[in-house]
Amino acid sequence: MNYFEESLKMHEKYTGKLEIKSKVKIETKEDLGLAYTPGVAEPCRRIHENEENVYKYTAKGNMVAVITDGTAILGLGDIGPKAGLPVMEGKAILFKEFANVDAFPICLDTKDVDEIVRTIQLISPGFGGINLEDISAPRCFEVEDKLKKILDIPVFHDDQHGTAIVVLAGLINATKVVGKKLCDLKVVVNGAGSAGTAISKLLLRSGIKNLIACDKVGILYRGMEKIDDAKTALTEITNPENIKGSLSDALVGADVFIGVSAPGIVTADMVKSMNKDSIVFGMANPTPEIMPDEAKKAGARVAGSGRSDYPNQVNNVLVFPGLFRGALDVRAKEINEEMKLAAAYAIANYIKDEDLNENNVIPSALDKGVATKVAEAIAKAARDTGVARI
Amino acid sequence: MNYFEESLKMHEKYTGKLEIKSKVKIETKEDLGLAYTPGVAEPCRRIHENEENVYKYTAKGNMVAVITDGTAILGLGDIGPKAGLPVMEGKAILFKEFANVDAFPICLDTKDVDEIVRTIQLISPGFGGINLEDISAPRCFEVEDKLKKILDIPVFHDDQHGTAIVVLAGLINATKVVGKKLCDLKVVVNGAGSAGTAISKLLLRSGIKNLIACDKVGILYRGMEKIDDAKTALTEITNPENIKGSLSDALVGADVFIGVSAPGIVTADMVKSMNKDSIVFGMANPTPEIMPDEAKKAGARVAGSGRSDYPNQVNNVLVFPGLFRGALDVRAKEINEEMKLAAAYAIANYIKDEDLNENNVIPSALDKGVATKVAEAIAKAARDTGVARI
Repeated sequence: MNYFEESLKMHEKYTGKLEIKSKVKIETKEDLGLAYTPGVAEPCRRIHENEENVYKYTAKGNMVAVITDGTAILGLGDIGPKAGLPVMEGKAILFKEFANVDAFPICLDTKDVDEIVRTIQLISPGFGGINLEDISAPRCFEVEDKLKKILDIPVFHDDQHGTAIVVLAGLINATKVVGKKLCDLKVVVNGAGSAGTAISKLLLRSGIKNLIACDKVGILYRGMEKIDDAKTALTEITNPENIKGSLSDALVGADVFIGVSAPGIVTADMVKSMNKDSIVFGMANPTPEIMPDEAKKAGARVAGSGRSDYPNQVNNVLVFPGLFRGALDVRAKEINEEMKLAAAYAIANYIKDEDLNENNVIPSALDKGVATKVAEAIAKAARDTGVARI
Repeated sequence: MNYFEESLKMHEKYTGKLEIKSKVKIETKEDLGLAYTPGVAEPCRRIHENEENVYKYTAKGNMVAVITDGTAILGLGDIGPKAGLPVMEGKAILFKEFANVDAFPICLDTKDVDEIVRTIQLISPGFGGINLEDISAPRCFEVEDKLKKILDIPVFHDDQHGTAIVVLAGLINATKVVGKKLCDLKVVVNGAGSAGTAISKLLLRSGIKNLIACDKVGILYRGMEKIDDAKTALTEITNPENIKGSLSDALVGADVFIGVSAPGIVTADMVKSMNKDSIVFGMANPTPEIMPDEAKKAGARVAGSGRSDYPNQVNNVLVFPGLFRGALDVRAKEINEEMKLAAAYAIANYIKDEDLNENNVIPSALDKGVATKVAEAIAKAARDTGVARI
C-alpha cells in the first residue's frame, strides 16, 4: 500500500479523524432542561461546593489533552502547530480505540517553555491528564518537569517515556530469550534527544548498570564540552568507565544496541563487534539504524525496529492508552517511576513464557488486550506508591 | 420534573455529557499506518507547505472551542472553571445536536484578561471558531475585542450576541404582530451587563432610535458618575433625551421592555404605565422580571421570557449552532454586525406570516430547522461582506 497517498485520501474524505459526540440526546424540552438550563445548574453547584465532584459530573476524569508545540513532529521536525494536528488527532483516536480514553488534540502556537507551561496549566481544569507530544529536546524536559510540579493530574511526555517503557519491555523479554540478566548487560543507546534520554534513565532504573549514551558527536562522557545541560546530566549517570570515542567504539563487546537516531548508521561490522547473543533495536523511522534482518545476519540474536513489517515492533501504542487508562481509573496525581517500570513488566509479561522467542519479544501493536494489562499494572503501582486518589 | 435532581442523576450516570469519537476504525496494520505512522506524515507535510490545507486534512474546520473562565456561570456567578464545566459541555453538545458542529469545552484557570486572550490565541491553531461563554462583564468586552483583533477565525461571545440576536428576532416579529415599526419604538433595556449591552447595541443597529438602558442604579445617562467604561460608552449611544430616573420612570410610555436583570422587579403597575400594545420580554432566569401571564394581564400584548413553559421562549440555542455552522461552512474570518442582523432576520422569518401571533413570535428552541436557516443567512452575509474565505 502507498501509505502516503492513501492516508491523504483518507484524511480528506473524513476531514480529520475525530469528532465530538454527545452522550445524551436532545430532542424534548425535558432533554434540554436536563443537559442545559435549568438542570445543569445543580452539577455546577455541587462542583462549586466540592471540587472533586468534577470527576463525578463531567467528562474530565476520562479526558486527556494531547499537546504539542509542533517543534518535533514525527521525523519532520519543526513544522508548526497546524501541521502537527494530524499526528495529535491520530494519537487521540488511538487513545479511544485502544483504551476508551477520550483525548483531545491541543496544538500550541508558541515555542516558549514558560508560555507552554502556563497555557497548559490554565486549560488544565477540564482535563484528567496531559500527554505531551512531539516537543523538541531539550525544551521537552523542562516543560514536563515544570508541569509535574504545578499540576495535580498525570503529565506524560510520550516520546520520552512511552518509548522508554516499550523498549524496556522488549529488553526484559529479549534477555530472557538470550539467557542474560539486565544487571550484567552492556547497553549502548544511540541518540540523546527526548527518547534516548528517557530510555537511558529508565533502563538504569530497571537494574542495568553499564549503559553508554552516544550522540552525533560520539560517546557522551563526563567533562565533555559544548553539550546542553540535559546531556551533561546524562553523562553523570551513564558511561561508568567514562570512555571516549565513536559509536563504533562503544559497540565493541556490547550486549545491546538501542537506536533512536538516524537511518542506516549501524553497519554489519559494528554488530559483529558486539558480544555474543546481542540484541539490536534500531528504531529510527521509517528506516532503522540497521534493518532487523541485516542485524541478525551479522550475528544479533534478537532484532527489533519501529516497523510493522518485521518482528518485534517497538510501538508506543502498546503504552500510552493503557497507561492513561490505569492512571485515570484511580485518579492518579502523577506518573511516577514505579508506574513506568510496572507498565514495562506488564507489556513484557503479556507474552507467555512458552510463546517467547527471538521473533516475539514484544506484543503486537494491534493487540488491544495489552492496554488492559498495562492499565491494571499502572493502577496497582499508583496505589502502592500512594499517588492514587481513589 | 425536578430538573435539579434528575440532572444530577443524568450527569453522574454518563460522567459528563460528551466524548471523543474516532471517525475511522483502527483494527489492522493498514488502519494504523493510515491514521498514524507512517501515513500521517503526508497530511502533515501538505499543511506545512500550505497552512490552508489544515482545513482539508484535519477536524479544525468544524471544531469550535467553548471557552469560559468560570466567572459568570448561568445565574450562579463566579464559581470557577471546574464548576463551569457542566455548562460548557452542555453547550458543546447543543452545537453538535443542532448543527453538527464539533465543539469542545475549555475552562480557563485565570481571570486575567490578557492571560485569557493570550491562552486562547495560543490554543487557536486547532479550532475553526471561538465561542466565549459566561465571562463576567465588563471583562468579557475586552476579551472579545482583543481576540477579534488578533485571530483570523470567528470569535463570538454568546451571552452577548446570541441573546441580542434572538431578542431582536422576537422583537421583529412582535412589532409585526402589534403593527408598530422598529424605528418608532421606545425601548427600555434593564440590565447593562454583557447581554444588556449587546442587546442595546444590536437593537440600535437594527433601526431602533429611542432606547433607554437601565441598571441597578436606574436610567443610565451621559454625565453619570461611578460607572465603568463600558456603561459610559453605552450612555453615548442610548437615551437620546438624556433623561434621568428609575426603571419605573423609564417605562412610562415605553413600547418595549427587555429585561436581562433580576426576578420580579417589574410590577403590573409598571406595565400598565407603558404605551398601548406593549411588548415585554423579561428574561431573568429561572424567574423573569415579570411572569409572561402577569405582564399580559397588566396590558402587554406580547410577552416572552427565558422559560420553556410559556410561549415565546428566548433561547440562545436558536442562534449559536446555526451561526457557527454558517461561519464554518464559508470559513468566515469573523462574525460581523451584518451577520448578526442576518441571523436575527432568519430566525424571525422562520415563522411564516400566517403563523405569526402574540404567542408565536419566536420559533421553538427545539426546532432544529432554525439552525439551517440561520446558517444559510450567516454564510450569505459573510460572503456579501467579504469575510468568507470560500
